[in-house]
Amino acid sequence: MKVYLSGEIHTDWRDQITQGAQHLAVEFSVPVTDHGASDDCGVAILGAEPDKFWHDHKGAKLNAIRTRTAIEAADVVVVRFGDKYKQWNAAFDAGYAAALGKSLIVMHGADHQHALKEVDAAALAVCETPQQVVDMLNYVLTGALPK
Amino acid sequence: MKVYLSGEIHTDWRDQITQGAQHLAVEFSVPVTDHGASDDCGVAILGAEPDKFWHDHKGAKLNAIRTRTAIEAADVVVVRFGDKYKQWNAAFDAGYAAALGKSLIVMHGADHQHALKEVDAAALAVCETPQQVVDMLNYVLTGALPK
Amino acid sequence: MKVYLSGEIHTDWRDQITQGAQHLAVEFSVPVTDHGASDDCGVAILGAEPDKFWHDHKGAKLNAIRTRTAIEAADVVVVRFGDKYKQWNAAFDAGYAAALGKSLIVMHGADHQHALKEVDAAALAVCETPQQVVDMLNYVLTGALPK
Amino acid sequence: MKVYLSGEIHTDWRDQITQGAQHLAVEFSVPVTDHGASDDCGVAILGAEPDKFWHDHKGAKLNAIRTRTAIEAADVVVVRFGDKYKQWNAAFDAGYAAALGKSLIVMHGADHQHALKEVDAAALAVCETPQQVVDMLNYVLTGALPK
Amino acid sequence: MKVYLSGEIHTDWRDQITQGAQHLAVEFSVPVTDHGASDDCGVAILGAEPDKFWHDHKGAKLNAIRTRTAIEAADVVVVRFGDKYKQWNAAFDAGYAAALGKSLIVMHGADHQHALKEVDAAALAVCETPQQVVDMLNYVLTGALPK
Amino acid sequence: MKVYLSGEIHTDWRDQITQGAQHLAVEFSVPVTDHGASDDCGVAILGAEPDKFWHDHKGAKLNAIRTRTAIEAADVVVVRFGDKYKQWNAAFDAGYAAALGKSLIVMHGADHQHALKEVDAAALAVCETPQQVVDMLNYVLTGALPK
Amino acid sequence: MKVYLSGEIHTDWRDQITQGAQHLAVEFSVPVTDHGASDDCGVAILGAEPDKFWHDHKGAKLNAIRTRTAIEAADVVVVRFGDKYKQWNAAFDAGYAAALGKSLIVMHGADHQHALKEVDAAALAVCETPQQVVDMLNYVLTGALPK
Amino acid sequence: MKVYLSGEIHTDWRDQITQGAQHLAVEFSVPVTDHGASDDCGVAILGAEPDKFWHDHKGAKLNAIRTRTAIEAADVVVVRFGDKYKQWNAAFDAGYAAALGKSLIVMHGADHQHALKEVDAAALAVCETPQQVVDMLNYVLTGALPK
Repeated sequence: MKVYLSGEIHTDWRDQITQGAQHLAVEFSVPVTDHGASDDCGVAILGAEPDKFWHDHKGAKLNAIRTRTAIEAADVVVVRFGDKYKQWNAAFDAGYAAALGKSLIVMHGADHQHALKEVDAAALAVCETPQQVVDMLNYVLTGALPK
Repeated sequence: MKVYLSGEIHTDWRDQITQGAQHLAVEFSVPVTDHGASDDCGVAILGAEPDKFWHDHKGAKLNAIRTRTAIEAADVVVVRFGDKYKQWNAAFDAGYAAALGKSLIVMHGADHQHALKEVDAAALAVCETPQQVVDMLNYVLTGALPK
Repeated sequence: MKVYLSGEIHTDWRDQITQGAQHLAVEFSVPVTDHGASDDCGVAILGAEPDKFWHDHKGAKLNAIRTRTAIEAADVVVVRFGDKYKQWNAAFDAGYAAALGKSLIVMHGADHQHALKEVDAAALAVCETPQQVVDMLNYVLTGALPK
Repeated sequence: MKVYLSGEIHTDWRDQITQGAQHLAVEFSVPVTDHGASDDCGVAILGAEPDKFWHDHKGAKLNAIRTRTAIEAADVVVVRFGDKYKQWNAAFDAGYAAALGKSLIVMHGADHQHALKEVDAAALAVCETPQQVVDMLNYVLTGALPK
Repeated sequence: MKVYLSGEIHTDWRDQITQGAQHLAVEFSVPVTDHGASDDCGVAILGAEPDKFWHDHKGAKLNAIRTRTAIEAADVVVVRFGDKYKQWNAAFDAGYAAALGKSLIVMHGADHQHALKEVDAAALAVCETPQQVVDMLNYVLTGALPK
Repeated sequence: MKVYLSGEIHTDWRDQITQGAQHLAVEFSVPVTDHGASDDCGVAILGAEPDKFWHDHKGAKLNAIRTRTAIEAADVVVVRFGDKYKQWNAAFDAGYAAALGKSLIVMHGADHQHALKEVDAAALAVCETPQQVVDMLNYVLTGALPK
Repeated sequence: MKVYLSGEIHTDWRDQITQGAQHLAVEFSVPVTDHGASDDCGVAILGAEPDKFWHDHKGAKLNAIRTRTAIEAADVVVVRFGDKYKQWNAAFDAGYAAALGKSLIVMHGADHQHALKEVDAAALAVCETPQQVVDMLNYVLTGALPK
Repeated sequence: MKVYLSGEIHTDWRDQITQGAQHLAVEFSVPVTDHGASDDCGVAILGAEPDKFWHDHKGAKLNAIRTRTAIEAADVVVVRFGDKYKQWNAAFDAGYAAALGKSLIVMHGADHQHALKEVDAAALAVCETPQQVVDMLNYVLTGALPK
């Protein structure tokens, strides 16, 4: 089963999931989570841009080669919303995955519940912790519930 | 040409566009923009829920009947990000539209430029004002530039 | 908006919906609801079959010309489960509609809740009465809640 | 060849097929067949629900991650209807598989023939026993008929 | 309902169907049935070819603009096999329609039954006469059986 | 029948076709053929760009809203290659149309035959003059050959 | 590269191709070529039918599990038309493959040229001998022409 | 990740990329780059043609078996435009890849910028050198920027 881990990049939630699920036949893919590299990749490779819009545009498109390929290949897309920032790219990925018919899991704290209601409505599961994602993947693949 | 107007619901930008484009062969569709009705539609019709999550869930799914039908029928999806709120549903719609290969126009102020770079990267046009949307629709349909 | 009304054919729920929604821009389609004609259409037109399996097979395929064309053309598919019979064709239609990404509304009584949980899980709304379907169509198309 | 075995979970028909076909290049997938785990997986991982509808809803959606991924990956979907229960999820899976253009095999006793005529009409084969499924898979893959 | 009438062009079966169904909301499309024009259209418009293969190739491709557009737009494809000629284009159209998920009706005499078994297996109805096609279209659209 | 006329914009070939076909049930669509407007539309509406690449980029994307919508809606795409310029956008449109399975007609002079062999190989017809396009549309729609 | 070899089953053309191409990275698939088994597989496994139509119907559908799975998985579909029989299933397979956008190679003698013009028009290559198919597969995979 | 390298065949840019990326998990595919073989493959295998159009036609279609299979299998399509020739096949491939939603990288010198603006507008990255392609593939797969 192929699982793409989208969204918040400032905590170690991806590590918790990949380590918790290392006994399972899951192939994880993730975006580039080095914030600086992700922001500057476009101009670093394709040439500087004086205008911030195009600086960001080049980078966002280059990152899209990775993220869209990964989402399209995934069976399950997990999207985590954290406490900070706008995280519109996370919601964009969720919409992209939903339109492709991917199984969507959304992870966020209770404080974001109302603001994420449309995203949650497209999900097959809404949870709060990486352990719940591990438990779900374990259940989906082995049929075993957590003890 | 069918155009869906997604996103921010607290200013009159949709009216400005539909009025500015009334001489064009455009069929506009919009979400329910009455905030209260949109929030409570699920429980009003399908029965009350003591848990806010399910209250919102019922409403968000009912609204999805309208929004997904409209996005899937649209040739062009315009998504506006305003100054307030998380607006994750707007970014979700943008991702949904992008995955379906719709022509995407994103409208937002300069202050949101960096946070919206992934959304902008999927768009065929990024603009700031309703008049620019009208000018684009006019150009796309008639070939005439604004004077 | 195109709405297909699938499922139980022994009560007048379709009439209640089409009459309740007659002020709306909805184009309804329905299966053949004459039980006898639906059962015998295949052999009546294509020749008698001594074996009941093929008798039914011819009829079911001929009915499929109508039902699949209608489901594929629909924006919304409403599936009602009544009190009697196996109604596997209703669940089949729900699965068919879900796989095509149609907006699915399921209508059934509380006693069938557990048995229909997988079907309900694929729906954008679950309700009990024709009036609720009318209210939803009215809301989806006009944004107005029932008074 | 990938084969998904959907439907009735109270007899050992899946074991009979997987054992009978163990000499063939078939990769079988199955739903979670532990009835209790399947019913309670949602609340066990994602938190308790006082309302039975949402209890079931959470579970059904979590199970859908497994079943839809499996159906979408399958070349052949076998759906068995047993003697008891409504089994609407089996008919739902059959409809889902049919809409995706999967090769559908339906297995059921003669007493359900009339009630399943629409499901049978979408199938490439209708049979009664696990051995017939094994024989078909053997024929489809090797060209050999049963002796 | 859009119906494409493919296959044999030497009898008046298309006229019988279109006249018999003139009271129904059916939009029929047909190939060019003037044998000479159909054979020579390519070279007549695009220039002569000394080699018969390319003479035919140009014509067949030009006819394909009409036939594929019509099949892709159709809800139902009726394919008739007559007594003479190879009629491989009819079987090709049937395969083309089947792969697109169109409702397929095959019409042929009993003598061709064995040779057409694979084509019939993909059809929702197999019949012998134009009147049966009219009766089916009438039933599918009105629910009325022939008297 | 919907026909999109792509490619060379410096001669009146589109007018010849639309006038020659005015007796036919054809709905033509065309790109913006005002060279200056087409080049500058992006910056005229969305703001000036000092860098020629982004100047052109904004314009090309805005034009893509029109051209892709038209190609996707078309049944037939006619692409004309003229004597001058690189005309890579014409070949791009041809590839885009071919991948979508549109009926492709290519029009060009004999001198470009070798260079266009891959494009011609994807076409259902290759011709040299607007009159030939008119004759083909007339034949495809009426079955009549030119006198 | 996956290649499906469809059509005539009375000469050893498939063996010639698979042996001639054994040095290439090609995975061949073929229908069941044992005429008797292919005709009787349905009733042998699923039960006898007194009516020849249903006898054939059961068999044709069972064979379809193999052939459609193979065509859908193939990159290239080779269809051979021999000297005898109607071979409508071969033309059906060609149409099915064409509609799915598969690369189609048609093999037949010169005497069938006119009757197969519509099938040939959908092909990327038309040839007469198994050696030509081997030469094409060799060229497509290695770039080397026959010496 | 599967990458198809389309376009100009007279410099060693493909070798530079495949060698530069040999440490990466990339599977490259390329067209036949032997100009003579590519031009004559059709007639060499399928028989001579006196008319240059059909000579080229046979070859272009045979090459299409390779190129379309490769583009359809690719995650990323890189298209290079060189200094000479019309290179319409390169632009055709770019359009074909864009319509299929592939990640498109376009490589060309600054002098072709204006003529390629429509092609560039469909790309996720526009660059000038093979090293930039290597750097992008490296970044997309490993997240590391060039030093």
